[in-house]
Amino acid sequence: MKTLSLVTAVAVQASAPSLADNTADIDRLKAALELSLPAQLNRNINVPYSCMARVAAAFRNVDFKGYAVLNVLPWQLDVVDFLPDVPAFLPALALDLGTTHLEATLIDLLTGKSLAHDHAVNAQIEYGTDILSRIHFAQQGRDDNGLELLQKAIVGSINGLIEDLTSQCDCVPADVRAVSVSGNTTMVHLLLGLNPYHICREPYIPLVNDPDPFLCREIAISTHPEAMAWVLPSIGSYFGGDLISGILASGLDQAEETSMLIDVGTNAEVVLGNQEWLIACAGAAGPALEGGVARMGMRAASGAVEHVSIDRKRWEIDVQTIDNAPAVGICGSGLIDLVAELYLAQVVDLRGKFQGEFVGKSEAQKRFIRKHLVELEGEKAFILVPIEQSGSDDPVLLTQIDLDAMMRSKAAMYAILTTLTNQVGVEFTDLSKIYVAGAFGKHIDPRQAITLGMLPDLPLETYQGIGNSSLHGAERILLDEQSWLRARTIGGKITYIELNVNQDFMIRFSGSRFIPHTDPHLFPSVPVFT
Amino acid sequence: MKTLSLVTAVAVQASAPSLADNTADIDRLKAALELSLPAQLNRNINVPYSCMARVAAAFRNVDFKGYAVLNVLPWQLDVVDFLPDVPAFLPALALDLGTTHLEATLIDLLTGKSLAHDHAVNAQIEYGTDILSRIHFAQQGRDDNGLELLQKAIVGSINGLIEDLTSQCDCVPADVRAVSVSGNTTMVHLLLGLNPYHICREPYIPLVNDPDPFLCREIAISTHPEAMAWVLPSIGSYFGGDLISGILASGLDQAEETSMLIDVGTNAEVVLGNQEWLIACAGAAGPALEGGVARMGMRAASGAVEHVSIDRKRWEIDVQTIDNAPAVGICGSGLIDLVAELYLAQVVDLRGKFQGEFVGKSEAQKRFIRKHLVELEGEKAFILVPIEQSGSDDPVLLTQIDLDAMMRSKAAMYAILTTLTNQVGVEFTDLSKIYVAGAFGKHIDPRQAITLGMLPDLPLETYQGIGNSSLHGAERILLDEQSWLRARTIGGKITYIELNVNQDFMIRFSGSRFIPHTDPHLFPSVPVFT
Repeated sequence: MKTLSLVTAVAVQASAPSLADNTADIDRLKAALELSLPAQLNRNINVPYSCMARVAAAFRNVDFKGYAVLNVLPWQLDVVDFLPDVPAFLPALALDLGTTHLEATLIDLLTGKSLAHDHAVNAQIEYGTDILSRIHFAQQGRDDNGLELLQKAIVGSINGLIEDLTSQCDCVPADVRAVSVSGNTTMVHLLLGLNPYHICREPYIPLVNDPDPFLCREIAISTHPEAMAWVLPSIGSYFGGDLISGILASGLDQAEETSMLIDVGTNAEVVLGNQEWLIACAGAAGPALEGGVARMGMRAASGAVEHVSIDRKRWEIDVQTIDNAPAVGICGSGLIDLVAELYLAQVVDLRGKFQGEFVGKSEAQKRFIRKHLVELEGEKAFILVPIEQSGSDDPVLLTQIDLDAMMRSKAAMYAILTTLTNQVGVEFTDLSKIYVAGAFGKHIDPRQAITLGMLPDLPLETYQGIGNSSLHGAERILLDEQSWLRARTIGGKITYIELNVNQDFMIRFSGSRFIPHTDPHLFPSVPVFT
Repeated sequence: MKTLSLVTAVAVQASAPSLADNTADIDRLKAALELSLPAQLNRNINVPYSCMARVAAAFRNVDFKGYAVLNVLPWQLDVVDFLPDVPAFLPALALDLGTTHLEATLIDLLTGKSLAHDHAVNAQIEYGTDILSRIHFAQQGRDDNGLELLQKAIVGSINGLIEDLTSQCDCVPADVRAVSVSGNTTMVHLLLGLNPYHICREPYIPLVNDPDPFLCREIAISTHPEAMAWVLPSIGSYFGGDLISGILASGLDQAEETSMLIDVGTNAEVVLGNQEWLIACAGAAGPALEGGVARMGMRAASGAVEHVSIDRKRWEIDVQTIDNAPAVGICGSGLIDLVAELYLAQVVDLRGKFQGEFVGKSEAQKRFIRKHLVELEGEKAFILVPIEQSGSDDPVLLTQIDLDAMMRSKAAMYAILTTLTNQVGVEFTDLSKIYVAGAFGKHIDPRQAITLGMLPDLPLETYQGIGNSSLHGAERILLDEQSWLRARTIGGKITYIELNVNQDFMIRFSGSRFIPHTDPHLFPSVPVFT
């Protein structure tokens, strides 16, 4: 069966009114539509008051024959338009609502094709770079209107994206028929203008996890006036709809064999399970990997260092940037590569500290270290791309501070994974697949993450990158009502482990703050330098 | 099973959030509510975006225990409020939306009790006294905003009524949780701001017969912000929701035996049938019986003459007014009484013309006629209440012009009834009941209507007055969802006969323009004076 988009157009042909058939226009449309509906659309037909006059006039103008445009709600169909011909396209916006960045696709609901793709900075950054500072700002802000300012900022960013995307394909925001949103719980609250106060306070309770669809215009998103907003449900304060998207995209919840999904954005969110059961947890593991936090960190955009390798024979460093543009920063995968390579090159020790040249065993290695390792404001820093080769007025470098943050993140990640598997008595070797999602997963080399002790030491084919699955999930629900319904039920199936209060996690976190681990036997493939 | 109001309050008790149970507030409320719902409310629970923050805060403020207020929609429940205690009452407005007058009851949805009752003039009268002139005004009006002016006028009248009714029971408009509206098709269009252009033009097609429930605030009715408006469905241009109300009230559609419902407001609307079939028609028969058209016509209000009898031995006239107040006009039932009595007194002949004193057989009768029958602007007029006994600066009288209008109305009524029964081959004597509704039916004496040849000559016990069934139907659906659902299905069961183009009707109308009829054998109980 063809998947059913959340907005669809159905051909309708009604007989013209006569003295023998004096049904009213709207009732005539409903009756004819009911006869034309495919089985999967067999549900109550509603004509919202706001559409009634317009739909009736359009229906009459084309002699009662044309295409009814329907918002496909779970328990009813809303007739929102009547068109003379099958429309050229029905654009809808799929949105990955990130704390620092938004990424969006304009999708044609008729064909499923992507019409345009773009990203934007989350304008809320003006009021706080991270989630906690925004939650704080929402409580007061300037003139006690913090929540309102935050909502306006994110809506402004979204409207800017809609403007950009629609202009790329010769249409206008009023042509956009639906918006799907996948984001973390706090971002969804701020978008909806809901106070996230309790999200960061024990026992960490969101105001809402699974909001019912609502009209975009209710929060001033510029679309067709009857476009609905569909928000992917969250499961908890630190477990957002972005991960539900990942579950949809990976099919974790439908597989017989047990597998794992790791999504790292600002938080690390992990799900473990199969078609029988799902267990999940989330924790702060991502900041070092996401743009805007680490000094040189940036998202995976043009000029971001995405891969680094150090030739340990010739002591040369090879840097790959996105679009081969001059380097301006390091994205998540580049950071992981860099630290892993620096460990293997013994520039960084197992504690995650720059060692200095004394570890050098050869003149070439010493020259390499002298060339790259500098003192910066009293701290060591590794110059990855010197100023003269960089794409900005600064060199691209890794400071000890950023390295420390990276070590905390990698430790947190491994601790999260072990805590979770331990909860259900599953071994890493039991996993058929580990799906890696998020900006983090886009270009990550699992080999390097294993070297760091960030991901378990498993055969590389176990790992499968699934890209920005938050965006993919948002795209998917627009095109497939079943995926939307599935998203709403997944939450109910997941056992969620709160790590912020989990002792087991804290112990595992401490044990993970070495490269690869305090217990190197867990990582047989990683060399240990003593 | 208890009937289910369209707004209801359900007791909810949820456990407090904890680390072990970190469900979000709104999701917690939905889950707890789902467990508390009685079987008849077992449907999808929706929290509208506009209510989310308020409902979540209220739920939290009372420690997750209290009463959820639900809008009971056909396919879902909208959670619109959360209250700490069971409310003292849940007021809702039932409205009979008449062309000239509005009548409304404020009802408590918890107990079904009437809290207040009032009526008001339809302020649209400023733009046209009858339906046709308003349809015309809607096409242009002043500055091309006729439709808008008409909508504003009627909404203003309704808001005035809501203000009055709520102040009578110490509450405010924002306490009103729902509004039900029963009215003719054109009035419903004008209330909804929908152009009634095609209603009065062949083939007489309304824009909508059965509008889906919508928010009162969408048309600026002052209520609770989440109050829904429920409009009783119409069947055709000349067959409004007011008659569906009558069918609900009479139970015509559920009876084994065939019966008939007659509702006379500005139009006469008649339904014939039983649980197997229903046939209906409507036509202009009412104007003479409704206030505002006949010179002395008025609605059944204080000071209206509602009964008239003439003692034909002593040649004295007895006049009863509503509230025994000094007479200021004649309502429908008074007009019927008066003309019937004047016919029996041979003051009016079988053609419906004042005869003058030459018919008098006794001196007393002659004196009676001399006393009451006068010349007024070249036309005869019957003085019912002389100026010195009237409640105004004029006598209460019946002119030949009003008498002619009355004759047309009574002829139309009988022609409608015979056309309808003829359509299905039913004899009047087959009818188990004839329900008489509307302002017309409030105090009508069927004996007098039979004398005029307005209603068929059947045993008086066949007739049953059911009052303002338009208002009663509006009250009923607020208190009983099943009645609302039944109202929506009744329309589909009714075969509607369009009289405006019915030749049979025109012939029958001509034959009915005598008292009691050109064929007096149809009215054996009525004396014929030759």
